[in-house]
Amino acid sequence: MSPSAGSVGPVRPQRARFDAPLALRCGRSIAGYELVYETYGTLDADRSNAILVCHALNASHHVAGWYEDDPDNVGWWDNIIGPGKPVDTNRFFVIGVNNLGGCFGSTGPMSIDPATGEPYGGDFPLVTVEDWVEAQARLADHLGIQRFAAVMGGSLGAMQALSWTRQFPDRLGHALVIACAPNLSAQNIAFNEVARQAILTDPDFQDGRYYAAGGAPTRGLRVARMVGHITYLSDDTMASKFGRQLREGGLRYSFEPEFQIESYLRHQGGKFAGYFDANTYLRITKALDYFDPAYETGGDLARALAPARAGFLVISFTTDWRFAPERSREIVQALLRNGRDVTYGEIDAPHGHDAFLLDDPRYHALVAAYLDRVARGLPTGASGEAGRAPEPEARA
Amino acid sequence: MSPSAGSVGPVRPQRARFDAPLALRCGRSIAGYELVYETYGTLDADRSNAILVCHALNASHHVAGWYEDDPDNVGWWDNIIGPGKPVDTNRFFVIGVNNLGGCFGSTGPMSIDPATGEPYGGDFPLVTVEDWVEAQARLADHLGIQRFAAVMGGSLGAMQALSWTRQFPDRLGHALVIACAPNLSAQNIAFNEVARQAILTDPDFQDGRYYAAGGAPTRGLRVARMVGHITYLSDDTMASKFGRQLREGGLRYSFEPEFQIESYLRHQGGKFAGYFDANTYLRITKALDYFDPAYETGGDLARALAPARAGFLVISFTTDWRFAPERSREIVQALLRNGRDVTYGEIDAPHGHDAFLLDDPRYHALVAAYLDRVARGLPTGASGEAGRAPEPEARA
Repeated sequence: MSPSAGSVGPVRPQRARFDAPLALRCGRSIAGYELVYETYGTLDADRSNAILVCHALNASHHVAGWYEDDPDNVGWWDNIIGPGKPVDTNRFFVIGVNNLGGCFGSTGPMSIDPATGEPYGGDFPLVTVEDWVEAQARLADHLGIQRFAAVMGGSLGAMQALSWTRQFPDRLGHALVIACAPNLSAQNIAFNEVARQAILTDPDFQDGRYYAAGGAPTRGLRVARMVGHITYLSDDTMASKFGRQLREGGLRYSFEPEFQIESYLRHQGGKFAGYFDANTYLRITKALDYFDPAYETGGDLARALAPARAGFLVISFTTDWRFAPERSREIVQALLRNGRDVTYGEIDAPHGHDAFLLDDPRYHALVAAYLDRVARGLPTGASGEAGRAPEPEARA
Repeated sequence: MSPSAGSVGPVRPQRARFDAPLALRCGRSIAGYELVYETYGTLDADRSNAILVCHALNASHHVAGWYEDDPDNVGWWDNIIGPGKPVDTNRFFVIGVNNLGGCFGSTGPMSIDPATGEPYGGDFPLVTVEDWVEAQARLADHLGIQRFAAVMGGSLGAMQALSWTRQFPDRLGHALVIACAPNLSAQNIAFNEVARQAILTDPDFQDGRYYAAGGAPTRGLRVARMVGHITYLSDDTMASKFGRQLREGGLRYSFEPEFQIESYLRHQGGKFAGYFDANTYLRITKALDYFDPAYETGGDLARALAPARAGFLVISFTTDWRFAPERSREIVQALLRNGRDVTYGEIDAPHGHDAFLLDDPRYHALVAAYLDRVARGLPTGASGEAGRAPEPEARA
């Protein structure tokens, strides 16, 4: 990180209200809704320097900085966003938003349904990546941003960035598509389904109407998170971080945690179940399962992405077995077939899918170099210099 | 399969009672116990042609043939065991046994604890691979078999075969170690722990004392089996068998199964929860986690396997990501370092870990060729011809 790199500092979430109904892909519509968001940096006079950051499964609008009353609550992508960081808030106006159906303040299952005066709970509609993008576009209108310099995200967030290029091709200059896949594989869906079944069959789930009872399907949500967490880490990371290390000197022959990996997973599961909402979790896994832009084009991803006009930075990580590099390469191939400008980086990183959240210098250098060219209005893409990531030490 | 290959036909489980207490690795002992077993073929006059088949997680003593009153209940390894089959019951006397702690008739959590007159339930001790082998050795005594021609198994069954070579090196001629690993990786343990947590946190589990209440933690057991099942199949198999196929024409936007893979997993989970016991499942996953012969030798597998005198056939499958070929190669390397006779086959099969249960001609030909040499008293191993699997059509 360059010496000038730092944090955006204390931040404050904001809230926007949208009164026009939003028609959803599931056939239902939502009468009105609120989105919670944060912004970092300054929108320039011609409103051309905005970057939208889309979040993945368990994250939120709190992307960078911290809260004055909760300084340990640092944004989930703080390592990449800030003054002098790869997503440089000295140059860009960066927006994080909690998606519709979320559980961090935007309208979702925990919100009051105006039709009943009760929380939506299990009645909250199933939302899709496309719905989120529609809702984000209204937030852009609200902020007076006609066109984003870039829309970016990792994992499910990258699916939103990709969908932006199809749904609103004229409203973004670039898409940063990190640790993504053009759709979920059967194995991906299978893991999501295990997670859902853990929640749905928890007696405390009560068809999603658990808020009134004051309870929550925390047992199911714990198990759901544990299985998800395994798929975010590489086998290698698990081996080097935990291996077969025991918590105590020897085996105890009980169902209490004996191996370090067991403690770690239980801890992660318990922590998650303490702050995340099960109804939101169910809906986000479904949005993942449903995302499949090539479904309408009979599997032809290039045709599905034909409307896109953006420049693309696509990044994958070698040990990501959830969304493996070959899945990113499918996206790259489709874009190249369409003659789009694409920069593709396959980062040799040991951390599995989680690598997109981590501070890998080659990865960050690639994002920095790409966005530097975006900021300077230089060409990007297959023929541009951004295709070659500079060595980390070469960065100013 | 050769024209003479067929089934062993109708079979009948038998039962052996052992009254001497068995000291277990966990420090407890079991006062007395029964094992249910089946045999196929004829024990020869000098009792030298017996093969012991050890079962994996969810299987039983019912290895081949069928029951007269239940002809659809075919043994789990019927495709490899029978007259003229790779494990040829015209030549070998084959024994299948339900392990101690099992739920198919051998003494286990569902059995009555003589000390209380109630089912053991959650009080049944945690048993290990080593304990199972001890109990199997007593069954061999009971059957008058001093030395097995071979002990064989796949997955957890293979761990038992491997353990036999350390615990009773003089009591077996050969070990067939199929789809095995010298121990579980952190990722393997993690998946087991998710399965256990699904069961242990099911309110119907009641600390394992659920028999009296007439209930069972079927919700947890279903989820446990679903996550396990994903790890038995390869990503490729799932993709080619299910892909993103929908059950109906379009999306339904509900939590009912929409993708074929969801229906399949739910079906597998439900079926399993209908016949398997949760207390047994918990214990078998623990036995898997604990197995680690090199633990006592500071990770030196060769030293751990130093007592072994058997000849070895080790087989792995290319798409097995649960116990990947490199894990089998660790076993092979350790054995070669000890100067053991080892035949190693890495079968290019698309089916993942489950491949060991399937009728792959190259795999079956390798087992047939190896056991043919065993039956004829010819040398096996690295220098023997059995090291080269014949083409399937070359088999008589």
